[in-house]
Amino acid sequence: MIVLKLGGSVITDKDSDETVDEERLAALAGALGGYDGELVVVHGGGSFGHPAAAAHGVSRTDGTRSAEGVREVHAAMKRLNDRVVSALAGEGVPAVPVHPFSLAHRSREGELSLPVEGVEASLGEGFVPVLHGDVVVHRDEGATVVSGDELVVSLAEGLGADRVGLCSTVPGVLDDGGEVVPRIGGYDEVAGYLGESESTDVTGGMAAKVRALLDLEAPASVFGPEALEGFLAGEEPGTRIG
Amino acid sequence: MIVLKLGGSVITDKDSDETVDEERLAALAGALGGYDGELVVVHGGGSFGHPAAAAHGVSRTDGTRSAEGVREVHAAMKRLNDRVVSALAGEGVPAVPVHPFSLAHRSREGELSLPVEGVEASLGEGFVPVLHGDVVVHRDEGATVVSGDELVVSLAEGLGADRVGLCSTVPGVLDDGGEVVPRIGGYDEVAGYLGESESTDVTGGMAAKVRALLDLEAPASVFGPEALEGFLAGEEPGTRIG
Repeated sequence: MIVLKLGGSVITDKDSDETVDEERLAALAGALGGYDGELVVVHGGGSFGHPAAAAHGVSRTDGTRSAEGVREVHAAMKRLNDRVVSALAGEGVPAVPVHPFSLAHRSREGELSLPVEGVEASLGEGFVPVLHGDVVVHRDEGATVVSGDELVVSLAEGLGADRVGLCSTVPGVLDDGGEVVPRIGGYDEVAGYLGESESTDVTGGMAAKVRALLDLEAPASVFGPEALEGFLAGEEPGTRIG
Repeated sequence: MIVLKLGGSVITDKDSDETVDEERLAALAGALGGYDGELVVVHGGGSFGHPAAAAHGVSRTDGTRSAEGVREVHAAMKRLNDRVVSALAGEGVPAVPVHPFSLAHRSREGELSLPVEGVEASLGEGFVPVLHGDVVVHRDEGATVVSGDELVVSLAEGLGADRVGLCSTVPGVLDDGGEVVPRIGGYDEVAGYLGESESTDVTGGMAAKVRALLDLEAPASVFGPEALEGFLAGEEPGTRIG
């Protein structure tokens, strides 16, 4: 079973509000149409989620108690999710939408609680659940953002994924010379050029991604869009982590 | 804390596909705008959910493995939910959408599993979660329909509701002379005219509703749209059950 993240910057044009990169999304959907194992897809927010979240001043740590803010960020993400689900459906993927705001929430300490039984049942019935970065209720903070990366980690752990894929705009984790690092077994191997990231900075940098992926049981790969087909075929393109 | 059901036939025109009864919905939203306690709203499918479910041959007991069927029934219900949430928001209710397909599923035996921790957290942050009849994944059956009535019972039990309200097209449970029965303490009191319904027939008849509501800890009231304001003010209009 694979948990696959499609980066928000991969499937949208980050410089233009609520704009899907149609060609890119169609190519990725085409690759997924050829895969028939168990699969959970998670996508990021790109130019849909980020402007809405910024407009309402909501982030992973800064909450909002504005129901309007929650509705607008969530609605923007559902519009993108609709587009992704439709693109996958057009390629014969039995994709069904799963909205994290309905499913998950955070404790006072910010810990994400994501019940996976329904997603597991969905996989068992042959569906491909498609989740997305979103807002979630956060005790004592109103609602905060949950990133696609956080969802990937939580789903991979909860579902016991066999493999995790992060389809990114870059072809892998790059070293200080701009070359793809083929394998990362521990954070000390890359701390020199990725830096000592704060573990809470999960929406953003590669450093936090690498740290979170190293903690997973399952091996993870970070790769570019052109390598998705190979990844689905069992290859380990880009950077293998763990 | 109140769990309130707005019947699908109350807020939509059942004879016309995907048509909201705007005047009725506006009046109900107006009444809810004046309430400021903890509140969970559940609405039925009316002319949004039922035609889509019928088109795909999906009911509470007949499942579908068609991802397209799931997407279409769910999308129809999300369109109605959007309208309900918007109407409530327009009256100042801090309404936020919660989609059962993302949250709940059924066991092989058809038992509904609905984690309530997120809804509870949402109430604690001052939001008003608005759920709806939907499709849910059903182990070994694909996906089946979950009715608003089932959700009301599951939420009231899980959240320990203080009161349950069912806003219906009729002013209460009617006896065989067409008069509202003011109070039902046990099913034997009404079996004579409601009949011996099967307990699994929850989407439809009043008999199954009454049985399910009698099983709740919280007192429930079945009343017509004009009585919502009174119910929210603490009255027991229509029929009190339990």
